[in-house]
Amino acid sequence: MKEVLIVGSVALDSIETPAGTVDNALGGAATYGAAAASLFSPVQLVGVVGDDFPAEHTQFLESRGIDLEGLQRIEGGKTFRWKGDYIDDLNAAVTHETQLGVFEHFEPTLPESYKKAELVFLANINPSLQLQVLDQVENPKLVLCDTMNLWINLAREAVLKVFGRVDIAVLNDGEARMLTEEDNLLVAGRQLLELGPRAVIIKKGEHGSLMITRDALFSVPAYPLDKVVDPTGAGDTFAGSIMGYLAKTGDLSDANLRRAIVYGGAVASCTVQEFSLGGVRDLKLDEIERRFQFVRDLCAF
Amino acid sequence: MKEVLIVGSVALDSIETPAGTVDNALGGAATYGAAAASLFSPVQLVGVVGDDFPAEHTQFLESRGIDLEGLQRIEGGKTFRWKGDYIDDLNAAVTHETQLGVFEHFEPTLPESYKKAELVFLANINPSLQLQVLDQVENPKLVLCDTMNLWINLAREAVLKVFGRVDIAVLNDGEARMLTEEDNLLVAGRQLLELGPRAVIIKKGEHGSLMITRDALFSVPAYPLDKVVDPTGAGDTFAGSIMGYLAKTGDLSDANLRRAIVYGGAVASCTVQEFSLGGVRDLKLDEIERRFQFVRDLCAF
Repeated sequence: MKEVLIVGSVALDSIETPAGTVDNALGGAATYGAAAASLFSPVQLVGVVGDDFPAEHTQFLESRGIDLEGLQRIEGGKTFRWKGDYIDDLNAAVTHETQLGVFEHFEPTLPESYKKAELVFLANINPSLQLQVLDQVENPKLVLCDTMNLWINLAREAVLKVFGRVDIAVLNDGEARMLTEEDNLLVAGRQLLELGPRAVIIKKGEHGSLMITRDALFSVPAYPLDKVVDPTGAGDTFAGSIMGYLAKTGDLSDANLRRAIVYGGAVASCTVQEFSLGGVRDLKLDEIERRFQFVRDLCAF
Repeated sequence: MKEVLIVGSVALDSIETPAGTVDNALGGAATYGAAAASLFSPVQLVGVVGDDFPAEHTQFLESRGIDLEGLQRIEGGKTFRWKGDYIDDLNAAVTHETQLGVFEHFEPTLPESYKKAELVFLANINPSLQLQVLDQVENPKLVLCDTMNLWINLAREAVLKVFGRVDIAVLNDGEARMLTEEDNLLVAGRQLLELGPRAVIIKKGEHGSLMITRDALFSVPAYPLDKVVDPTGAGDTFAGSIMGYLAKTGDLSDANLRRAIVYGGAVASCTVQEFSLGGVRDLKLDEIERRFQFVRDLCAF
């Protein structure tokens, strides 16, 4: 079983949804990604927190067997904080406040033991930092990146450069349209494929996901839910689970990637049923397996 | 092989989309539904036109083996005309003009030979007319209804009454939300199921469709297209094909209904690739079969 190296944000989130609110809950793309990947495989985490980062969160990550050697802790610094709501639309967060804190001057530095990572997940973070990580890993077998609308707006060229250096690019439907200025998702995905990745995976929220490769398409519905409590982290746990499953199985084929995507959707569906990491914290593999099989039956004809 | 009885609108459509325009092209829910169903089985059509209805359209329907004994032709009357565009959003038509014409006083009267129909498709039309048809058929084995936002707004109670008397209710995602005032499609579909139908099929456009029955869910993606020319009639040909396939196979089981839905999606995907009935007019079964198999591969994992 291989490790997954994950770089991205570690955050404290304050979130309001129709189901309620949480304040300063554990969040961040790398946190969600690592918690999900660790359901399947060992994880090495690269990120930064301030000295206000609660010990209970560090303990939770360690309890999942996540290697925190790469998690910098800045004395006197403040952990990245995000505040937002999903009151009007569970598919689109409204940001109220972003406090960059220690993220403002963050430079990811990989511990020696991380540089030989075979599976690398560049979770959502400034694309220039994603590129810095790529410069430090020696010979990865598979790199997957995620991004967000903020970076497509602020640093479009850097996002495109990242896409050109990864094996799998993951983004949501709105981001794919924004990045390509193309409304049709199939056309958008094919344009992104031309940048270099072997596969482009477009997340469509409640509609599931679409994978585009040079010679095939794969489309799978989401695990159906009658209630979403907090959509935060759905995409991060989706991608983290994909990487964890690939690491666990050691099979990087397209056929196994399809299964990884279904496992990713299963974990993401658990994520959104509780606030923060509540849906992933005590998640067991047999529940993930049950949802995987449910989706298999859901699509059967 | 059984016939499918279809009642609904027969129209002349003037449509503008980003791909172009057509004026007074053959349209209407029953027309699209009948053209699609006739790819699989014989069809009996119930509807009304004025004496301005072009002979070429009648000839086309006859050339498809569609029984037109139930198509009333009102001398001195005008055929129903609809004018609209999909310029801003291919998923939502903007109506410019509706001329009811002969539809204003239409009362569907079934020829004797139609009353023993075993498969009945109540295509989109005033729900009170759908109920009149139900009162005239003697002992149908399976009735499927469609509707639209107009009737949910104008005649909500009648729409609910129709849903209570059919075996399968088909509607799109926006209509399901409007009718139930419930945003979550799974919850909305289950509410509609309580009205009586054995299955509720929710059309999600480019995202495919979702079928909800008492003991299972079925979700299938749409056949992926890189361009949509004219979305008009997609839902009508989807439902018409479902009924045609059920009639052709004579198998009304849930398992066969899943296959029928995939065939419906295949035909709908052809419909939207050309204006009016251009995508269905010369469609061959082997192209439909090819798209069915494509969707099977698309979902395989």
